[in-house]
Amino acid sequence: MCWKGTIPLMFRKVITVATSGEGDIINLTPHIRSILHESGVKDGMCHLFVTGSTAAITTIEYEPGVLSDLKRALSVLAPDDISYAHDQAWGDGNGRSHVKAAVVGPSLTVPVIDGDTVCGTWQQIVLLELDIRSSRRRTVICTVTESAAPG
Amino acid sequence: MCWKGTIPLMFRKVITVATSGEGDIINLTPHIRSILHESGVKDGMCHLFVTGSTAAITTIEYEPGVLSDLKRALSVLAPDDISYAHDQAWGDGNGRSHVKAAVVGPSLTVPVIDGDTVCGTWQQIVLLELDIRSSRRRTVICTVTESAAPG
Amino acid sequence: MCWKGTIPLMFRKVITVATSGEGDIINLTPHIRSILHESGVKDGMCHLFVTGSTAAITTIEYEPGVLSDLKRALSVLAPDDISYAHDQAWGDGNGRSHVKAAVVGPSLTVPVIDGDTVCGTWQQIVLLELDIRSSRRRTVICTVTESAAPG
Repeated sequence: MCWKGTIPLMFRKVITVATSGEGDIINLTPHIRSILHESGVKDGMCHLFVTGSTAAITTIEYEPGVLSDLKRALSVLAPDDISYAHDQAWGDGNGRSHVKAAVVGPSLTVPVIDGDTVCGTWQQIVLLELDIRSSRRRTVICTVTESAAPG
Repeated sequence: MCWKGTIPLMFRKVITVATSGEGDIINLTPHIRSILHESGVKDGMCHLFVTGSTAAITTIEYEPGVLSDLKRALSVLAPDDISYAHDQAWGDGNGRSHVKAAVVGPSLTVPVIDGDTVCGTWQQIVLLELDIRSSRRRTVICTVTESAAPG
Repeated sequence: MCWKGTIPLMFRKVITVATSGEGDIINLTPHIRSILHESGVKDGMCHLFVTGSTAAITTIEYEPGVLSDLKRALSVLAPDDISYAHDQAWGDGNGRSHVKAAVVGPSLTVPVIDGDTVCGTWQQIVLLELDIRSSRRRTVICTVTESAAPG
């Protein structure tokens, strides 16, 4: 194989955030803007991935009301007050966290234009802390790749 | 940094579609095929992203029955007849739209082989209009990148 | 256009797996590790896409208890015992499969660092078989792209 010589460049940074317990939702947009600025990338893609199986990434309007509405909706899928096979097997107590995370998903890719993500004004990129611990540190891998329109 | 000289090319187009109100589902596949044809890209990736926090992108069989089944399912998560904190704060009335959009997500990446997406015969790429306005214009960013197998 | 000369390389393989009926969940991580090893790619991205509209891809802890918890949760969205417009129109009986697949989604992108995905220890990449047939063969397209940090 002849990979060398045609490998595009990427700019990769780890975003580390502290979360304050189940249901905490962190606005990642300022972190991502800072990374985009540092990368110097004007046009391309930005990819986010959270490691761990009890957190998720999506977009939403970062407004307290709608964040609590989202939490209520996810509890329809995975209520607090039912029994989980995961908890019976492992005693973790976070079966509901795993279920919500698997449905929302750990990953998001957003286009970059003119040095910023193309998200709408009321559309922020967020990390959902779904685990039941009182606090955690979360690791989000942010990968920025540059591309250019053909000349 | 030495980005220049190794930046891959991309082909980026905006798909603008008119939606006819809450629950409208638009088949994006013909739009995407047209963009792929225009790009000339045979092998690579195609990425879709909808701006705004009250719409979503996924794949489904574009058949009226299953589209109505999907709408019913999303209303289990975010029913029409309950109170939303978002609506109480802002009077928007579209709290349910935000919730559904955050769960399904705004983004999708699909492989391109031989100039077409690899979707199955009964698997179309769709835009879900989840907002409550009677009509909207939606912006979907379509980014096509070409890659080649190593020689 | 001048694509040639700046096209990055990708390594693309099809993962074919046999599924044993509705609710089967396949751990794709060993397949992906094998492809990453074969590709020789150390840093970049790995993308997974399942063709067909009655299967989905996500991450979860591959542990029997939590897998059954996820199945229960998806049945809240699309129960076995209600009527589906899709089934009334087509007699397929798999309306619920389509609905679950559309919500979870067919696609996932994961960063690659040091030749492996960055998933957490308890975070596996899985294929959800949601269709009602007693067995199926599923096709997952795995695309690995290499990128390098700027020098």
